[in-house]
Amino acid sequence: MFTRDPFDELRVVLVETRNPLNIGAAARAMSNFGFLHLRVVKPYDLAFREARSAVGAAALLADAEEFETIAEAVADCSLVVGTTALGRREPQHPVRSLEAAARLIRKRLTSSRVALLFGSEKRGLSNEDLSHCHWLLRIPTRQEHRSMNLGQAVAVCLYELARNPRAAPRKEKHIAANSAELERLTSVLVEALRGSGYLKSSVSGSQKRRSPGPSEEKIRRLVRRLKLSPPDAELFLGILRQILWKLRSGK
Amino acid sequence: MFTRDPFDELRVVLVETRNPLNIGAAARAMSNFGFLHLRVVKPYDLAFREARSAVGAAALLADAEEFETIAEAVADCSLVVGTTALGRREPQHPVRSLEAAARLIRKRLTSSRVALLFGSEKRGLSNEDLSHCHWLLRIPTRQEHRSMNLGQAVAVCLYELARNPRAAPRKEKHIAANSAELERLTSVLVEALRGSGYLKSSVSGSQKRRSPGPSEEKIRRLVRRLKLSPPDAELFLGILRQILWKLRSGK
Repeated sequence: MFTRDPFDELRVVLVETRNPLNIGAAARAMSNFGFLHLRVVKPYDLAFREARSAVGAAALLADAEEFETIAEAVADCSLVVGTTALGRREPQHPVRSLEAAARLIRKRLTSSRVALLFGSEKRGLSNEDLSHCHWLLRIPTRQEHRSMNLGQAVAVCLYELARNPRAAPRKEKHIAANSAELERLTSVLVEALRGSGYLKSSVSGSQKRRSPGPSEEKIRRLVRRLKLSPPDAELFLGILRQILWKLRSGK
Repeated sequence: MFTRDPFDELRVVLVETRNPLNIGAAARAMSNFGFLHLRVVKPYDLAFREARSAVGAAALLADAEEFETIAEAVADCSLVVGTTALGRREPQHPVRSLEAAARLIRKRLTSSRVALLFGSEKRGLSNEDLSHCHWLLRIPTRQEHRSMNLGQAVAVCLYELARNPRAAPRKEKHIAANSAELERLTSVLVEALRGSGYLKSSVSGSQKRRSPGPSEEKIRRLVRRLKLSPPDAELFLGILRQILWKLRSGK
């Protein structure tokens, strides 16, 4: 049994990649998600280490291993998974969705080495390539446009592999202002609204009890609908006090 | 209530993208995962429609909408989410993991339009850009190498958004004000704060050019945290206009 980081047991294998930029993009995504071991099989452009778009992934590219055949590139791996857009039928292999595949790969990585194969930009993995695979993985792209860019396919697969399946969705931590804070805010707002003439200043005397404008209760409800945090309630209070002060001093 | 495809309500917004290849890559990922509406804000290279790597996404690129400002690009959206690598900046917004963010976005897409913002390759989204966002989304890349390639970040986000079609999201009851409404509210509030002396007026000389300073961004963020419904946004606007009128007439 390994005691090392399971991520350390994945080998991303790029087969006959034509564009060095794509090798660079794959390397960058690997570095982003913490899978640092790249293998290339017969890259079209031997100068792949100079791949320009590999921002921050230079070391990973420098350490990349180069092979002449897939057989050699996956020799030390106990599970070999091919990626496919599945335009054609592959009845000889089980095909798993990325999500299901990632679960199986993560599990395997805790005990042994796994290879994840990506074919060339033009034609993907050939039948001969696929014959080295235990099963295939498909990213759930839509039927009308299945084929992904190589660097993006690598990024999406590694994102899914790196996801923590046990990470329970945490509840949103919203701290709400308490009623005292909201009521302070309400009174100052009501005062400002009276000062500005938006609310009638009183209901006394000969005035009718019901004014056509928004009532104080309406303002109180409005303030409660804002879902303010304590700092935001404080911020608003400061704003309104300043407005109120200005309204009064302007008279 | 909408009866259309929720995917149809997402707007992927690329802000000041420098490299046309990245616009093409974003378009391709959008097409792969079924999100077909692209908006670009001040793209660096105006020939973005010729983006070469957009295999199979030509129609999507031809339909892309171009805007001069973020405010215009998100005006019809009731939720605006910024993407960030959060390497350097102190977050002034709530930041959600991609997984949690995707759940919220999917839910919102059942009732209204959502914008997902991606910044430029060099510097991401600026603080001014971010002030238009309700909250931020972070792809869980590793600390040692957080910053993703733009096209790969778009692919990973859209993959996560498109996942789990079996879990039909329940419709959201809360209808949120859209960005145009919130921006109107922001400007009137900022005016009122200038009028009351809470914010310094940055009108210089005879020129009435206002620079959107940090304090205006702070107010913009505050308004977006309020989670206003359209009627409440309207109510607030009325209140503020009355206050503003009074402040001015009182002088």
